[in-house]
Amino acid sequence: VNTIIVELTKELAAIVGRPNLIVDREALMPFETDYTRRWHGEALLAVAPSSTDDVARVLSVCQAAGVGVVVQGGNTGLVGGAVPADEVVLLTRRLDVLEPIDSLASQVTVGAGVTLEAAQRHVRADGLDLPVDLAARSAATIGGMTATNAGGALAVRYGTMAAAVAGMEVVLGDGKIVSRLSGLLKDTAGYDLARLLVGSEGTLGVITRVRLRLIRHPTQRLVAVAGFGSLVDAARAALTLRDRLGPSLEAADYVDAAGVRLVRDRRRLPPPLAVESGHLLVIQVAGEDVESLLPVVSETLDAAGVTAVSVADDTSGRERLWTYREAVNESIGAQGLVHKFDASIPLGAIPEFAAETHEAVALVDPAATVVIYGHLADGNLHVNVLSPDLDHYRVEQALGQLVAQHNGSISAEHGIGIAKRDLLTLVRSDDDIAAMRAVKAALDPEGLLGRHRVLREE
Amino acid sequence: VNTIIVELTKELAAIVGRPNLIVDREALMPFETDYTRRWHGEALLAVAPSSTDDVARVLSVCQAAGVGVVVQGGNTGLVGGAVPADEVVLLTRRLDVLEPIDSLASQVTVGAGVTLEAAQRHVRADGLDLPVDLAARSAATIGGMTATNAGGALAVRYGTMAAAVAGMEVVLGDGKIVSRLSGLLKDTAGYDLARLLVGSEGTLGVITRVRLRLIRHPTQRLVAVAGFGSLVDAARAALTLRDRLGPSLEAADYVDAAGVRLVRDRRRLPPPLAVESGHLLVIQVAGEDVESLLPVVSETLDAAGVTAVSVADDTSGRERLWTYREAVNESIGAQGLVHKFDASIPLGAIPEFAAETHEAVALVDPAATVVIYGHLADGNLHVNVLSPDLDHYRVEQALGQLVAQHNGSISAEHGIGIAKRDLLTLVRSDDDIAAMRAVKAALDPEGLLGRHRVLREE
Repeated sequence: VNTIIVELTKELAAIVGRPNLIVDREALMPFETDYTRRWHGEALLAVAPSSTDDVARVLSVCQAAGVGVVVQGGNTGLVGGAVPADEVVLLTRRLDVLEPIDSLASQVTVGAGVTLEAAQRHVRADGLDLPVDLAARSAATIGGMTATNAGGALAVRYGTMAAAVAGMEVVLGDGKIVSRLSGLLKDTAGYDLARLLVGSEGTLGVITRVRLRLIRHPTQRLVAVAGFGSLVDAARAALTLRDRLGPSLEAADYVDAAGVRLVRDRRRLPPPLAVESGHLLVIQVAGEDVESLLPVVSETLDAAGVTAVSVADDTSGRERLWTYREAVNESIGAQGLVHKFDASIPLGAIPEFAAETHEAVALVDPAATVVIYGHLADGNLHVNVLSPDLDHYRVEQALGQLVAQHNGSISAEHGIGIAKRDLLTLVRSDDDIAAMRAVKAALDPEGLLGRHRVLREE
Repeated sequence: VNTIIVELTKELAAIVGRPNLIVDREALMPFETDYTRRWHGEALLAVAPSSTDDVARVLSVCQAAGVGVVVQGGNTGLVGGAVPADEVVLLTRRLDVLEPIDSLASQVTVGAGVTLEAAQRHVRADGLDLPVDLAARSAATIGGMTATNAGGALAVRYGTMAAAVAGMEVVLGDGKIVSRLSGLLKDTAGYDLARLLVGSEGTLGVITRVRLRLIRHPTQRLVAVAGFGSLVDAARAALTLRDRLGPSLEAADYVDAAGVRLVRDRRRLPPPLAVESGHLLVIQVAGEDVESLLPVVSETLDAAGVTAVSVADDTSGRERLWTYREAVNESIGAQGLVHKFDASIPLGAIPEFAAETHEAVALVDPAATVVIYGHLADGNLHVNVLSPDLDHYRVEQALGQLVAQHNGSISAEHGIGIAKRDLLTLVRSDDDIAAMRAVKAALDPEGLLGRHRVLREE
């Protein structure tokens, strides 16, 4: 291995320059463990190319050496997709271009390594905004979000990254460069390869540039936190608001009582509502005149049996209310080991699924605490199992089975990575998986890109 | 060939029943020529399976016999994609199931052979609507529209079929069945094979069922036809309306003076406006209270230099106004041979492209008449060249070059089919095309599905 690394170092340094290569074991550590601390592996080295052509050259060198490559953006993934396993880590951070905004098309092209926050700052200067937002915005990159088809709270209104991506440039596993950055609203000239890369989790190609659709930053935004006595009531409120507010509803997120407790402890916050409520709904309404929508909101919340509401229409008030939802992940992380399960559930089955989740986990591990939060109007629940003696395998089997019974998916927005590779058969047929393998072999014939991820090697 | 047909007939009859097989030469004729009459070819026979499993069996028989298969829905395509070339025609018309509407998810699953009109009727009974609409609705099928990523007038508001498809069932070229019909709003469990099939024009698999996203049928709809002295003015009006009306603008279509003249002659209609206008913009506004939007509309039209406007908010009035746009294709078809070129152009370059189109065609064929219409706010222009002595090759080369010069696409919504196969290199790199070939080979390794279409055989 050492000879390979020495040789690789020489060849890669010739492409990116020695300062953009990391070989020191200690310096490599931040790239070898993910946020959950569940996933860990060793990197041969890390390399940070700064252009699409250099990415192609890096891949070609690695291929010639027969070493695997894993792409890493902000390392905010939760399924082990970006953690190396004796592979070269291709860092996207130098792919950081922020091109000028195309205001006629309402689009912008940015480098894959640009963080969500940097992209937001860039476009908000022009009164525009990105249609996707999520709590990890300071570290998560546009490339990583595209590769995982990230969702976040605004997906109920604008869709996931799949809807936000108007084009991309990518180096496929075999070194071919596919560049589709014209951002045309309609373009059916052959297969939509750019779209195929969305959600492919770095296993088909390395995304180097992304062209994003932008939205007009809403004139007014209002956030309300509403308490409910049951998830049934909270879900009814969320879906009715979706129907009645239409495009004015930007988010309808959920946190259970255990999640709120963890956030309050960690951030030392007062209760979000005057009345203790077991189930919290966080909604965001946007438009030219949000006040005119308040009657519909309060009517709907009342009809669903709301126990208390808190509303904010100024920036700091909105952020304060969102904290009860956005800080859950971080607060859970501070607790120690956790099993994270990102589930997509048909809308009608959400309350039943949540109740059965508690029962199923109690059977596997009676000492565990379950925290559920997520994007209610999308059917997207993040199940978190905290336990002093966590058995990942048994928990994930139990939850995977439950999801499949309800015709849900084992991944809504976190992806498959390594974590859920073996659960894929619960929601995809053998034919389906065989077809995915064929696509993988077509675009990455050597199989050196993101190997072991999404699809188990045969 | 005859022995093959006799043998195929026997084997296919065993699958679908003899009445669902067409072998008679005269009976085959409707399936051998398309709407434009430019594309024509012979069918070995036509077969109409009624289930996904039967489609898989039909493909398997054809594969064993080594004969090519072309899928045909309503035969309303314009690029020769569904016309046979000594192939078996797989008719989707018996894939006609209309499943009950899932009102919680606002989705419905229908058979690929269901016409757009039948699907619209089905969902409108529940106060819902499809997010895609087009003039060929009585014949165009949901399967065909999905396979070609059809757009239509509403795409400015709801996107193309790519955005409307929530899932599908498909038999891949190699007989594998991929079924993704759960309609989850978020589902990132492996590659999005369903989405890859959208726009693949029947070359990767046979779409058998499609799950569609539905919209709430708007309470009120208003149509306005506005006249302008130049395309520059009309385009400015369309884009400003898009920005100012946001989700309330459902359509912003365009017809030039030549197009209006053809419609008026064919349908014996009065002029659409009191003042003769060279450039017609047809807009549709929808919402709960469209009257409140009228000031914005008239302000914007005035600022863009409108010459005359006609407005209708009742069903028959709206249809009457839409006729000036929707009957253009049919009126052109009645003129005889025509070269149809569906172009996607960056929004800022539309007027220039249109002007240069007239010049380029005049150089190639001074006797030709050019008719331009399309979806202005999407950058989607349908260029039609009518001439007594049409040279398709020279016209398409000229228009293809022009599109490429403006960083547009040679297909916005009609697809590549046979018509534009040789123009693909104008807008896709060699690497890109090679990657498409690899995907094709992965999912249809025998290469018997829709061969010669989209990608020229090597």
